[in-house]
Amino acid sequence: MKRFHERGHYDRSVIQDILDAGFHCHVGFVHQGQPFVLPTLYWHDEESIYIHGSAASRMIEASADAPLCITVTHLDALVLTRSAFHHSANYRSVTILGQGRMITDAAECAAQLRLMMERLFPGRWDRLRPVTPQEIKATRVIALPLSEASAKIRTGPPDEDEEDLAWPVWGGVIPLRTTVEAPVPDVTSLLHGIDDAPHCAVNPGTRDA
Amino acid sequence: MKRFHERGHYDRSVIQDILDAGFHCHVGFVHQGQPFVLPTLYWHDEESIYIHGSAASRMIEASADAPLCITVTHLDALVLTRSAFHHSANYRSVTILGQGRMITDAAECAAQLRLMMERLFPGRWDRLRPVTPQEIKATRVIALPLSEASAKIRTGPPDEDEEDLAWPVWGGVIPLRTTVEAPVPDVTSLLHGIDDAPHCAVNPGTRDA
Repeated sequence: MKRFHERGHYDRSVIQDILDAGFHCHVGFVHQGQPFVLPTLYWHDEESIYIHGSAASRMIEASADAPLCITVTHLDALVLTRSAFHHSANYRSVTILGQGRMITDAAECAAQLRLMMERLFPGRWDRLRPVTPQEIKATRVIALPLSEASAKIRTGPPDEDEEDLAWPVWGGVIPLRTTVEAPVPDVTSLLHGIDDAPHCAVNPGTRDA
Repeated sequence: MKRFHERGHYDRSVIQDILDAGFHCHVGFVHQGQPFVLPTLYWHDEESIYIHGSAASRMIEASADAPLCITVTHLDALVLTRSAFHHSANYRSVTILGQGRMITDAAECAAQLRLMMERLFPGRWDRLRPVTPQEIKATRVIALPLSEASAKIRTGPPDEDEEDLAWPVWGGVIPLRTTVEAPVPDVTSLLHGIDDAPHCAVNPGTRDA
Protein backbone atom coordinates (compact mmCIF):
# COMPACT_ATOMS: atom_id res chain seq x y z
CA MET A 1 0.00 0.00 0.00
CA LYS A 2 3.02 2.27 0.05
CA ARG A 3 2.67 3.09 -3.63
CA PHE A 4 -0.45 3.27 -5.77
CA HIS A 5 -2.26 4.45 -2.70
CA GLU A 6 -5.14 5.51 -4.92
CA ARG A 7 -5.74 1.83 -5.61
CA GLY A 8 -6.22 0.94 -1.95
CA HIS A 9 -9.67 0.32 -0.51
CA TYR A 10 -10.52 -0.62 3.03
CA ASP A 11 -14.28 -0.44 2.88
CA ARG A 12 -15.78 -3.64 4.25
CA SER A 13 -18.40 -3.91 1.53
CA VAL A 14 -15.71 -3.67 -1.17
CA ILE A 15 -13.75 -6.42 0.55
CA GLN A 16 -16.84 -8.61 0.90
CA ASP A 17 -17.72 -8.12 -2.78
CA ILE A 18 -14.27 -9.30 -3.87
CA LEU A 19 -14.41 -12.30 -1.54
CA ASP A 20 -17.96 -13.09 -2.69
CA ALA A 21 -16.73 -13.30 -6.30
CA GLY A 22 -14.33 -16.20 -5.79
CA PHE A 23 -13.46 -19.40 -3.98
CA HIS A 24 -9.77 -19.70 -4.73
CA CYS A 25 -6.97 -17.98 -2.79
CA HIS A 26 -3.24 -18.07 -2.14
CA VAL A 27 -2.04 -18.66 1.40
CA GLY A 28 1.30 -17.31 2.56
CA PHE A 29 3.03 -18.63 5.64
CA VAL A 30 6.58 -18.70 6.94
CA HIS A 31 8.52 -21.86 7.72
CA GLN A 32 12.02 -21.39 9.11
CA GLY A 33 12.32 -17.95 7.58
CA GLN A 34 11.23 -19.11 4.11
CA PRO A 35 7.88 -17.81 2.80
CA PHE A 36 5.59 -20.35 1.14
CA VAL A 37 2.63 -19.53 -1.09
CA LEU A 38 0.11 -22.27 -1.77
CA PRO A 39 -3.20 -22.24 -3.64
CA THR A 40 -6.30 -23.46 -1.87
CA LEU A 41 -10.07 -22.92 -1.66
CA TYR A 42 -11.60 -20.48 0.81
CA TRP A 43 -14.92 -19.40 2.18
CA HIS A 44 -15.79 -16.47 4.42
CA ASP A 45 -18.33 -14.72 6.57
CA GLU A 46 -18.44 -11.13 7.84
CA GLU A 47 -15.78 -11.79 10.46
CA SER A 48 -13.26 -14.21 8.97
CA ILE A 49 -11.92 -16.04 5.96
CA TYR A 50 -11.47 -19.81 6.25
CA ILE A 51 -9.28 -22.44 4.64
CA HIS A 52 -9.07 -26.15 5.29
CA GLY A 53 -6.72 -29.01 4.77
CA SER A 54 -5.45 -32.28 6.09
CA ALA A 55 -4.44 -32.27 9.73
CA ALA A 56 -1.04 -33.46 8.48
CA SER A 57 -0.50 -30.74 5.88
CA ARG A 58 2.38 -28.35 6.30
CA MET A 59 0.20 -25.42 5.31
CA ILE A 60 -2.30 -26.12 8.08
CA GLU A 61 0.40 -26.81 10.62
CA ALA A 62 2.24 -23.60 9.78
CA SER A 63 -0.96 -21.52 9.68
CA ALA A 64 -2.12 -22.16 13.22
CA ASP A 65 -1.16 -19.52 15.78
CA ALA A 66 1.26 -17.97 13.33
CA PRO A 67 1.47 -14.92 11.05
CA LEU A 68 -0.50 -15.65 7.92
CA CYS A 69 -1.47 -13.89 4.71
CA ILE A 70 -4.37 -14.87 2.47
CA THR A 71 -4.77 -13.13 -0.88
CA VAL A 72 -7.73 -13.40 -3.25
CA THR A 73 -7.17 -12.03 -6.75
CA HIS A 74 -9.43 -11.58 -9.75
CA LEU A 75 -7.49 -10.59 -12.84
CA ASP A 76 -9.97 -8.75 -15.04
CA ALA A 77 -7.99 -7.38 -17.97
CA LEU A 78 -4.64 -6.47 -19.44
CA VAL A 79 -4.29 -2.72 -20.00
CA LEU A 80 -2.25 -1.62 -23.01
CA THR A 81 -0.80 1.87 -23.43
CA ARG A 82 1.44 3.53 -26.04
CA SER A 83 4.49 3.18 -23.81
CA ALA A 84 5.75 0.00 -22.19
CA PHE A 85 5.98 1.86 -18.90
CA HIS A 86 2.27 2.52 -18.42
CA HIS A 87 1.00 -0.95 -19.29
CA SER A 88 -1.01 -2.32 -16.41
CA ALA A 89 -3.69 -4.80 -15.42
CA ASN A 90 -7.23 -4.43 -14.19
CA TYR A 91 -7.75 -6.53 -11.11
CA ARG A 92 -9.48 -6.78 -7.79
CA SER A 93 -7.58 -8.25 -4.88
CA VAL A 94 -7.96 -8.60 -1.15
CA THR A 95 -5.01 -9.24 1.14
CA ILE A 96 -5.69 -10.37 4.68
CA LEU A 97 -2.94 -10.30 7.28
CA GLY A 98 -3.11 -11.72 10.75
CA GLN A 99 -2.76 -14.70 12.96
CA GLY A 100 -4.38 -17.98 11.95
CA ARG A 101 -6.60 -19.76 14.46
CA MET A 102 -7.15 -23.50 14.16
CA ILE A 103 -10.71 -24.66 14.80
CA THR A 104 -10.27 -27.63 17.08
CA ASP A 105 -13.87 -28.31 18.06
CA ALA A 106 -15.19 -31.16 15.87
CA ALA A 107 -18.74 -29.78 15.67
CA GLU A 108 -17.51 -26.30 14.74
CA CYS A 109 -15.17 -27.81 12.17
CA ALA A 110 -18.01 -29.82 10.59
CA ALA A 111 -20.27 -26.77 10.59
CA GLN A 112 -17.62 -24.76 8.76
CA LEU A 113 -17.03 -27.47 6.15
CA ARG A 114 -20.77 -27.50 5.57
CA LEU A 115 -20.69 -23.74 4.97
CA MET A 116 -17.87 -24.18 2.44
CA MET A 117 -19.92 -26.72 0.50
CA GLU A 118 -23.21 -24.83 0.80
CA ARG A 119 -21.62 -21.69 -0.57
CA LEU A 120 -20.49 -23.44 -3.74
CA PHE A 121 -23.30 -25.98 -4.13
CA PRO A 122 -26.39 -25.02 -2.13
CA GLY A 123 -28.27 -28.07 -0.88
CA ARG A 124 -25.54 -30.55 -1.76
CA TRP A 125 -24.16 -31.20 1.75
CA ASP A 126 -27.39 -32.85 2.95
CA ARG A 127 -27.50 -35.15 -0.07
CA LEU A 128 -23.93 -36.40 0.30
CA ARG A 129 -22.81 -39.52 2.11
CA PRO A 130 -22.56 -38.10 5.66
CA VAL A 131 -19.14 -37.17 6.99
CA THR A 132 -17.67 -39.57 9.52
CA PRO A 133 -16.01 -38.58 12.81
CA GLN A 134 -12.73 -39.92 11.39
CA GLU A 135 -12.98 -37.60 8.39
CA ILE A 136 -13.64 -34.60 10.62
CA LYS A 137 -10.72 -35.63 12.79
CA ALA A 138 -8.43 -35.76 9.75
CA THR A 139 -9.48 -32.28 8.62
CA ARG A 140 -8.52 -28.90 10.02
CA VAL A 141 -10.10 -25.52 9.44
CA ILE A 142 -8.08 -22.34 9.91
CA ALA A 143 -9.84 -19.02 10.51
CA LEU A 144 -8.18 -15.69 9.79
CA PRO A 145 -10.02 -12.55 10.96
CA LEU A 146 -10.87 -9.93 8.33
CA SER A 147 -9.88 -7.12 10.69
CA GLU A 148 -6.62 -6.58 8.80
CA ALA A 149 -8.00 -6.96 5.27
CA SER A 150 -7.29 -4.46 2.52
CA ALA A 151 -8.42 -4.34 -1.09
CA LYS A 152 -6.69 -3.12 -4.21
CA ILE A 153 -8.60 -2.43 -7.39
CA ARG A 154 -7.73 -1.14 -10.82
CA THR A 155 -10.49 -0.67 -13.36
CA GLY A 156 -11.10 1.25 -16.52
CA PRO A 157 -9.18 2.30 -19.60
CA PRO A 158 -5.44 3.02 -19.91
CA ASP A 159 -3.94 5.87 -17.95
CA GLU A 160 -0.89 7.40 -19.57
CA ASP A 161 0.98 10.58 -20.35
CA GLU A 162 -0.94 13.04 -22.51
CA GLU A 163 2.00 13.41 -24.91
CA ASP A 164 2.04 9.66 -25.59
CA LEU A 165 -1.47 9.60 -26.99
CA ALA A 166 -0.42 10.65 -30.48
CA TRP A 167 1.90 7.65 -30.77
CA PRO A 168 0.36 5.46 -33.50
CA VAL A 169 -0.10 2.20 -31.67
CA TRP A 170 -3.21 0.53 -30.29
CA GLY A 171 -4.28 1.22 -26.71
CA GLY A 172 -7.12 -0.28 -24.76
CA VAL A 173 -7.96 -3.23 -22.55
CA ILE A 174 -8.02 -6.97 -23.23
CA PRO A 175 -10.55 -8.48 -20.82
CA LEU A 176 -9.99 -11.87 -19.20
CA ARG A 177 -12.90 -13.98 -18.07
CA THR A 178 -13.17 -17.09 -15.95
CA THR A 179 -16.11 -19.24 -16.87
CA VAL A 180 -17.66 -22.24 -15.19
CA GLU A 181 -18.22 -24.75 -17.95
CA ALA A 182 -20.78 -27.51 -18.32
CA PRO A 183 -20.39 -30.28 -15.70
CA VAL A 184 -18.76 -33.52 -16.88
CA PRO A 185 -20.28 -36.58 -15.16
CA ASP A 186 -17.99 -39.39 -14.07
CA VAL A 187 -18.52 -43.02 -15.10
CA THR A 188 -20.60 -43.78 -12.01
CA SER A 189 -22.99 -40.90 -12.64
CA LEU A 190 -23.36 -42.05 -16.24
CA LEU A 191 -23.91 -45.71 -15.29
CA HIS A 192 -26.53 -44.87 -12.67
CA GLY A 193 -28.21 -42.26 -14.85
CA ILE A 194 -27.67 -39.53 -12.27
CA ASP A 195 -27.78 -36.33 -14.25
CA ASP A 196 -28.66 -33.66 -11.70
CA ALA A 197 -25.24 -32.02 -11.76
CA PRO A 198 -25.14 -29.16 -9.26
CA HIS A 199 -24.90 -25.55 -10.27
CA CYS A 200 -21.86 -23.72 -8.89
CA ALA A 201 -23.32 -20.72 -7.06
CA VAL A 202 -20.09 -18.70 -7.21
CA ASN A 203 -19.00 -17.35 -10.55
CA PRO A 204 -15.31 -16.82 -10.02
CA GLY A 205 -13.67 -13.56 -10.86
CA THR A 206 -16.04 -12.57 -13.60
CA ARG A 207 -17.03 -9.02 -14.20
CA ASP A 208 -16.93 -6.45 -16.96
CA ALA A 209 -13.48 -4.98 -17.23
CA MET B 1 4.94 -31.80 -0.56
CA LYS B 2 4.69 -33.74 2.67
CA ARG B 3 1.26 -35.03 1.83
CA PHE B 4 -0.23 -35.77 -1.58
CA HIS B 5 3.23 -36.76 -2.63
CA GLU B 6 1.76 -38.42 -5.69
CA ARG B 7 0.79 -34.98 -6.90
CA GLY B 8 4.33 -33.67 -6.82
CA HIS B 9 6.34 -33.24 -10.03
CA TYR B 10 9.84 -31.96 -10.35
CA ASP B 11 10.42 -32.58 -14.04
CA ARG B 12 11.68 -29.41 -15.70
CA SER B 13 9.48 -29.79 -18.76
CA VAL B 14 6.36 -30.09 -16.57
CA ILE B 15 7.37 -26.93 -14.73
CA GLN B 16 8.06 -25.06 -17.98
CA ASP B 17 4.68 -26.13 -19.40
CA ILE B 18 2.83 -24.74 -16.38
CA LEU B 19 4.80 -21.48 -16.51
CA ASP B 20 4.25 -21.25 -20.28
CA ALA B 21 0.48 -21.39 -19.74
CA GLY B 22 0.21 -18.19 -17.69
CA PHE B 23 1.46 -14.72 -16.93
CA HIS B 24 0.00 -14.11 -13.51
CA CYS B 25 1.56 -15.25 -10.22
CA HIS B 26 1.48 -14.66 -6.48
CA VAL B 27 4.65 -13.49 -4.78
CA GLY B 28 5.32 -14.30 -1.13
CA PHE B 29 7.86 -12.39 0.92
CA VAL B 30 8.46 -11.76 4.59
CA HIS B 31 8.53 -8.32 6.20
CA GLN B 32 9.28 -8.22 9.91
CA GLY B 33 8.09 -11.78 10.38
CA GLN B 34 4.79 -11.22 8.58
CA PRO B 35 4.28 -13.04 5.26
CA PHE B 36 2.80 -11.01 2.42
CA VAL B 37 1.26 -12.45 -0.75
CA LEU B 38 0.76 -10.10 -3.70
CA PRO B 39 -0.44 -10.75 -7.25
CA THR B 40 1.75 -9.65 -10.13
CA LEU B 41 2.73 -10.55 -13.69
CA TYR B 42 5.68 -12.81 -14.44
CA TRP B 43 7.77 -14.05 -17.32
CA HIS B 44 10.43 -16.75 -17.38
CA ASP B 45 13.21 -18.48 -19.26
CA GLU B 46 14.85 -21.86 -18.66
CA GLU B 47 16.84 -20.56 -15.69
CA SER B 48 14.65 -18.10 -13.83
CA ILE B 49 11.26 -16.54 -13.28
CA TYR B 50 11.04 -12.74 -13.29
CA ILE B 51 8.77 -10.11 -11.77
CA HIS B 52 8.97 -6.35 -11.95
CA GLY B 53 7.70 -3.34 -10.12
CA SER B 54 8.38 0.20 -9.09
CA ALA B 55 11.76 0.79 -7.48
CA ALA B 56 9.77 2.15 -4.54
CA SER B 57 7.42 -0.80 -4.10
CA ARG B 58 7.54 -2.78 -0.90
CA MET B 59 7.32 -6.05 -2.81
CA ILE B 60 10.42 -5.27 -4.87
CA GLU B 61 12.30 -3.94 -1.88
CA ALA B 62 11.49 -7.03 0.20
CA SER B 63 12.22 -9.45 -2.67
CA ALA B 64 15.85 -8.46 -3.28
CA ASP B 65 18.45 -10.64 -1.56
CA ALA B 66 15.76 -12.20 0.60
CA PRO B 67 13.85 -15.49 0.80
CA LEU B 68 11.07 -15.41 -1.75
CA CYS B 69 8.31 -17.69 -3.02
CA ILE B 70 6.55 -17.33 -6.36
CA THR B 71 3.55 -19.52 -7.10
CA VAL B 72 1.76 -19.89 -10.42
CA THR B 73 -1.61 -21.65 -10.31
CA HIS B 74 -4.07 -22.73 -12.98
CA LEU B 75 -7.34 -23.90 -11.47
CA ASP B 76 -8.81 -26.28 -14.03
CA ALA B 77 -11.90 -27.78 -12.42
CA LEU B 78 -13.86 -28.50 -9.28
CA VAL B 79 -14.06 -32.23 -8.54
CA LEU B 80 -17.26 -33.50 -6.93
CA THR B 81 -17.54 -36.81 -5.13
CA ARG B 82 -20.32 -38.55 -3.17
CA SER B 83 -18.76 -37.58 0.14
CA ALA B 84 -17.76 -34.08 1.22
CA PHE B 85 -14.38 -35.45 2.26
CA HIS B 86 -13.16 -36.45 -1.20
CA HIS B 87 -14.16 -33.29 -3.03
CA SER B 88 -11.14 -31.79 -4.69
CA ALA B 89 -9.93 -29.52 -7.46
CA ASN B 90 -8.02 -30.11 -10.65
CA TYR B 91 -5.16 -27.70 -10.91
CA ARG B 92 -1.60 -27.20 -12.03
CA SER B 93 0.70 -25.17 -9.87
CA VAL B 94 4.38 -24.37 -9.65
CA THR B 95 6.00 -23.12 -6.47
CA ILE B 96 9.47 -21.61 -6.67
CA LEU B 97 11.50 -21.03 -3.52
CA GLY B 98 14.77 -19.21 -3.26
CA GLN B 99 16.51 -15.93 -2.95
CA GLY B 100 15.48 -13.00 -5.15
CA ARG B 101 18.14 -11.15 -7.10
CA MET B 102 17.55 -7.58 -8.21
CA ILE B 103 18.73 -6.76 -11.72
CA THR B 104 20.56 -3.47 -11.28
CA ASP B 105 22.11 -3.06 -14.72
CA ALA B 106 19.90 -0.69 -16.75
CA ALA B 107 20.51 -2.47 -20.07
CA GLU B 108 19.77 -5.89 -18.58
CA CYS B 109 16.64 -4.47 -16.93
CA ALA B 110 15.41 -3.01 -20.24
CA ALA B 111 16.17 -6.28 -22.05
CA GLN B 112 14.11 -8.20 -19.50
CA LEU B 113 11.15 -5.81 -19.74
CA ARG B 114 11.28 -6.26 -23.50
CA LEU B 115 11.09 -10.04 -23.02
CA MET B 116 8.04 -9.64 -20.78
CA MET B 117 6.26 -7.61 -23.45
CA GLU B 118 7.39 -9.79 -26.36
CA ARG B 119 6.09 -12.88 -24.62
CA LEU B 120 2.58 -11.46 -24.29
CA PHE B 121 2.44 -9.32 -27.44
CA PRO B 122 5.10 -10.33 -29.97
CA GLY B 123 6.34 -7.38 -31.99
CA ARG B 124 4.69 -4.74 -29.81
CA TRP B 125 7.78 -3.48 -27.96
CA ASP B 126 9.37 -2.06 -31.11
CA ARG B 127 6.20 -0.21 -32.06
CA LEU B 128 5.75 1.46 -28.67
CA ARG B 129 6.96 4.91 -27.69
CA PRO B 130 10.53 4.00 -26.63
CA VAL B 131 11.29 3.64 -22.94
CA THR B 132 13.23 6.48 -21.39
CA PRO B 133 16.24 6.14 -19.08
CA GLN B 134 14.09 7.63 -16.30
CA GLU B 135 11.47 4.91 -16.76
CA ILE B 136 14.10 2.18 -16.62
CA LYS B 137 15.57 3.81 -13.53
CA ALA B 138 12.15 3.79 -11.83
CA THR B 139 11.62 0.09 -12.59
CA ARG B 140 13.17 -2.94 -10.97
CA VAL B 141 13.27 -6.54 -12.16
CA ILE B 142 13.70 -9.38 -9.67
CA ALA B 143 14.99 -12.77 -10.86
CA LEU B 144 14.32 -15.97 -8.94
CA PRO B 145 16.16 -19.11 -10.12
CA LEU B 146 14.03 -22.13 -11.04
CA SER B 147 16.47 -24.48 -9.29
CA GLU B 148 14.06 -24.92 -6.37
CA ALA B 149 10.84 -25.15 -8.36
CA SER B 150 8.29 -27.88 -7.83
CA ALA B 151 5.00 -28.62 -9.54
CA LYS B 152 1.75 -30.03 -8.21
CA ILE B 153 -0.91 -31.34 -10.54
CA ARG B 154 -4.29 -32.97 -10.12
CA THR B 155 -6.18 -34.06 -13.18
CA GLY B 156 -8.95 -36.43 -14.08
CA PRO B 157 -12.20 -37.66 -12.59
CA PRO B 158 -13.12 -37.99 -8.89
CA ASP B 159 -11.16 -40.37 -6.73
CA GLU B 160 -13.14 -41.76 -3.83
CA ASP B 161 -13.90 -44.78 -1.71
CA GLU B 162 -15.37 -47.72 -3.63
CA GLU B 163 -18.22 -48.08 -1.14
CA ASP B 164 -19.31 -44.47 -1.71
CA LEU B 165 -20.01 -44.99 -5.39
CA ALA B 166 -23.50 -46.37 -4.83
CA TRP B 167 -24.56 -43.20 -3.01
CA PRO B 168 -27.18 -41.56 -5.26
CA VAL B 169 -25.68 -38.18 -5.84
CA TRP B 170 -23.94 -36.68 -8.85
CA GLY B 171 -20.16 -37.00 -9.17
CA GLY B 172 -17.88 -35.57 -11.81
CA VAL B 173 -15.92 -32.47 -12.64
CA ILE B 174 -16.98 -28.90 -13.31
CA PRO B 175 -14.33 -27.34 -15.57
CA LEU B 176 -13.23 -23.75 -15.18
CA ARG B 177 -11.81 -21.84 -18.09
CA THR B 178 -10.02 -18.52 -18.42
CA THR B 179 -10.61 -16.85 -21.72
CA VAL B 180 -9.00 -13.85 -23.34
CA GLU B 181 -11.87 -11.79 -24.71
CA ALA B 182 -12.04 -9.40 -27.63
CA PRO B 183 -9.87 -6.28 -27.16
CA VAL B 184 -11.68 -3.07 -26.20
CA PRO B 185 -10.04 0.01 -27.80
CA ASP B 186 -9.74 3.18 -25.76
CA VAL B 187 -11.03 6.55 -26.92
CA THR B 188 -7.72 7.49 -28.54
CA SER B 189 -7.58 4.29 -30.61
CA LEU B 190 -11.13 4.90 -31.74
CA LEU B 191 -10.50 8.58 -32.58
CA HIS B 192 -7.36 7.80 -34.56
CA GLY B 193 -8.87 4.78 -36.26
CA ILE B 194 -6.15 2.47 -34.91
CA ASP B 195 -7.73 -0.94 -34.94
CA ASP B 196 -4.79 -3.35 -35.00
CA ALA B 197 -5.30 -4.58 -31.44
CA PRO B 198 -2.56 -7.06 -30.54
CA HIS B 199 -3.19 -10.72 -30.00
CA CYS B 200 -2.22 -12.02 -26.55
CA ALA B 201 0.19 -14.90 -27.26
CA VAL B 202 -0.34 -16.54 -23.87
CA ASN B 203 -3.66 -18.17 -23.21
CA PRO B 204 -3.79 -18.21 -19.44
CA GLY B 205 -4.53 -21.38 -17.59
CA THR B 206 -6.67 -22.97 -20.24
CA ARG B 207 -6.69 -26.67 -20.82
CA ASP B 208 -9.11 -29.51 -20.89
CA ALA B 209 -9.81 -30.64 -17.36
